[in-house]
Amino acid sequence: MTDDVVRIDGQRLWASLGELARIGAYVDERTGLTGVNRQALTDEEAEGRRLVAQWFRDAGLAVRVDRIGNVYARREGSDPDLAPVLMGSHIDSVATAGAFDGCLGVLGGLEVLRTFDDLGVVTTRPVEVAFFTEEEGARFGVDMLGSAVAVGRIALADALALTDRSGVSLGDELVRHGFDGPEPERAAPPHAYVECHIEQGPVLAAEGLQVGVVTGVQGISWQEVTIDGRAAHAGTTPTQLRVDAGLAASHVVVRLREMAESGEFGALRATVGEMRFAPGLTNIVPTRAVLTVDLRNPDDDAMARAEDALDAYLHELEERWPGLAVSVRRMARTRHVPFDPEVQKAVATAADDLDLSHRSLLSGAGHDAQELASVCPTAMVFVPGLYDGISHNPREYSTPEACADGISVLATVVRRLAG
Amino acid sequence: MTDDVVRIDGQRLWASLGELARIGAYVDERTGLTGVNRQALTDEEAEGRRLVAQWFRDAGLAVRVDRIGNVYARREGSDPDLAPVLMGSHIDSVATAGAFDGCLGVLGGLEVLRTFDDLGVVTTRPVEVAFFTEEEGARFGVDMLGSAVAVGRIALADALALTDRSGVSLGDELVRHGFDGPEPERAAPPHAYVECHIEQGPVLAAEGLQVGVVTGVQGISWQEVTIDGRAAHAGTTPTQLRVDAGLAASHVVVRLREMAESGEFGALRATVGEMRFAPGLTNIVPTRAVLTVDLRNPDDDAMARAEDALDAYLHELEERWPGLAVSVRRMARTRHVPFDPEVQKAVATAADDLDLSHRSLLSGAGHDAQELASVCPTAMVFVPGLYDGISHNPREYSTPEACADGISVLATVVRRLAG
Repeated sequence: MTDDVVRIDGQRLWASLGELARIGAYVDERTGLTGVNRQALTDEEAEGRRLVAQWFRDAGLAVRVDRIGNVYARREGSDPDLAPVLMGSHIDSVATAGAFDGCLGVLGGLEVLRTFDDLGVVTTRPVEVAFFTEEEGARFGVDMLGSAVAVGRIALADALALTDRSGVSLGDELVRHGFDGPEPERAAPPHAYVECHIEQGPVLAAEGLQVGVVTGVQGISWQEVTIDGRAAHAGTTPTQLRVDAGLAASHVVVRLREMAESGEFGALRATVGEMRFAPGLTNIVPTRAVLTVDLRNPDDDAMARAEDALDAYLHELEERWPGLAVSVRRMARTRHVPFDPEVQKAVATAADDLDLSHRSLLSGAGHDAQELASVCPTAMVFVPGLYDGISHNPREYSTPEACADGISVLATVVRRLAG
Repeated sequence: MTDDVVRIDGQRLWASLGELARIGAYVDERTGLTGVNRQALTDEEAEGRRLVAQWFRDAGLAVRVDRIGNVYARREGSDPDLAPVLMGSHIDSVATAGAFDGCLGVLGGLEVLRTFDDLGVVTTRPVEVAFFTEEEGARFGVDMLGSAVAVGRIALADALALTDRSGVSLGDELVRHGFDGPEPERAAPPHAYVECHIEQGPVLAAEGLQVGVVTGVQGISWQEVTIDGRAAHAGTTPTQLRVDAGLAASHVVVRLREMAESGEFGALRATVGEMRFAPGLTNIVPTRAVLTVDLRNPDDDAMARAEDALDAYLHELEERWPGLAVSVRRMARTRHVPFDPEVQKAVATAADDLDLSHRSLLSGAGHDAQELASVCPTAMVFVPGLYDGISHNPREYSTPEACADGISVLATVVRRLAG
């Protein structure tokens, strides 16, 4: 072990995770488990923002808020003019979340800086930790939103104009909660970006490994498919005369699973998370069905082929049932994002120096890191999750030891990158 | 033609249908067609009730309202102590209705009595026309509700306690609109019941026939199926680890169509009119799916086999995906109801006497007549609908001539039954 290895305080980190998880907590009625519902810029998330910002200030960090509500906390370097090393993630959640997704990266970053203070570490470069607005896309429909605005992929005005299901705009919610900051949303690029996150998959736990060195993020394709058929009486309309939008939509769901299992589209994952019928009455053949399609693929070519195959299948359905009309609206699309080899190597070396077992793996989920990767050398540290790595679910869980190991890797990497 | 044949005033009937259809009218944004949304005991339906009751009074009829809100109008016979001949149907609608379903039977009954007055017809028996509460089941979830209470199949207290999706009770709505009548909900059985209705199917129009003699109503089975799976992250959870409630639900929809097309279950019709996913987010594998299943079958044995086959398939799904749990709640179940052969014969004879072509056929939809059939000799008259007989849709349409023909048959049958 070299002498610049950093071991963080796992108990302090764990206590912070537990305290933040109380904001937006709910008890799942079926399982009795406590979950977290802290969607972006709700009252709950705003309470979480204020708590974490207060912790930043308590740690002596300089806090700033930009115009999309991203919050940065800075520990000064001996040369303040150098570009900072940035850590970060998010504290917003989906409706049925656990305590780790996003929060580990933010509170882990805080823990890194607390530990630097404890150890009297002086870095040449400034070191910052950030939490980004609406990473999940659960409320305003676009994921990685705050980080995408920070790197210029999405225009500030477009982001502020996004509305939730009840028509409330993101911009108005920022103002309501006082997180419409004065700082420009596009800062100078950091020297490097490193994010620690729970794996949200089964690989590390299945192989008994302590740390994942993330090689990149798979491509993501979100589409909303609207199928228009013809409303008809359930009791009287002969089967062969029906143009059943709900049946067609169900065929899409089944077909997508077949595509994912076929192997024809590489490591495709396909999910229909939402489906609604209209008019939605027991005795009326649905006139309309709307469903969301979430495709993931580590291979951009295979992703494109999967999208084409879905498109062709939708046309098949139109031909099979004359009168059926299918339209598709693209909600999100990102290509495979490879991370920086040097930063990956720094993560692997830190894990070795900490005597932690590790492997390289691709991220199945989208992360703020994929946005930062467009402006600076970037990589991620994964920690294993239990229960097959389940996430976006109250069962999401990583042990205190696993979290401490991952954040110690983060601390060591950041210390070395910050010189 | 015999001299007791009655021809009604088709223009007056058509004008009444048009006027009632303005209450609850809406323009379908996709087709530009005008539809009707007049669900039971909404403000719109109450307005319709008041209009039709006023028309009853204007026609000199004695109007009474019972405790479930069924409204009866009576034209006295020369022997008031004899059981009346009853006509009827309903004026409530589904959310996406046309102008004919139910209304033709009610306004047709009114037209019969108006015509009797015009012709100076004196009947020995009283003749009545009724409209029954919540025939569609679209708002309070139980169809043929008012007529089922009138014949004692459903208890008054249970019916009054039913609530709509917003938690409002049927009993409170009756009071709010002043249709909580004083009359006992169970009257003495009529001498006979005859209902005229649009076919809601393609048979008569396809064969170029003017009138249908309805032999009975097929069995109806409504079930709500709840499928519990496991929420999981759409990007990270490997396909083989998923317990996807939405996928399982989609397989049920596809399977039901296969069953209907297989011929193994007789003339089975199967519809999934409503399906909802939870939590209903793009990037979360659904933890729960709830769907409605509407089965129709003219053969009780084939219906029972279809229900068993669905049940077996749901168990198959549970075995295919360990962790999946399926539960079923029965919403409604009626057996095949055969109508009275003598009343059917009276309908056919009246059609012959009016020089109208006709055939016997089974009703695919449920009707108030199937409830009345349990207490008195009952039959129905069908008139053809255009566009493959589409119904529960703004395109529902029957011509003025077809409506006049059907109601002339009704008038002739009722005159003969009333002696």
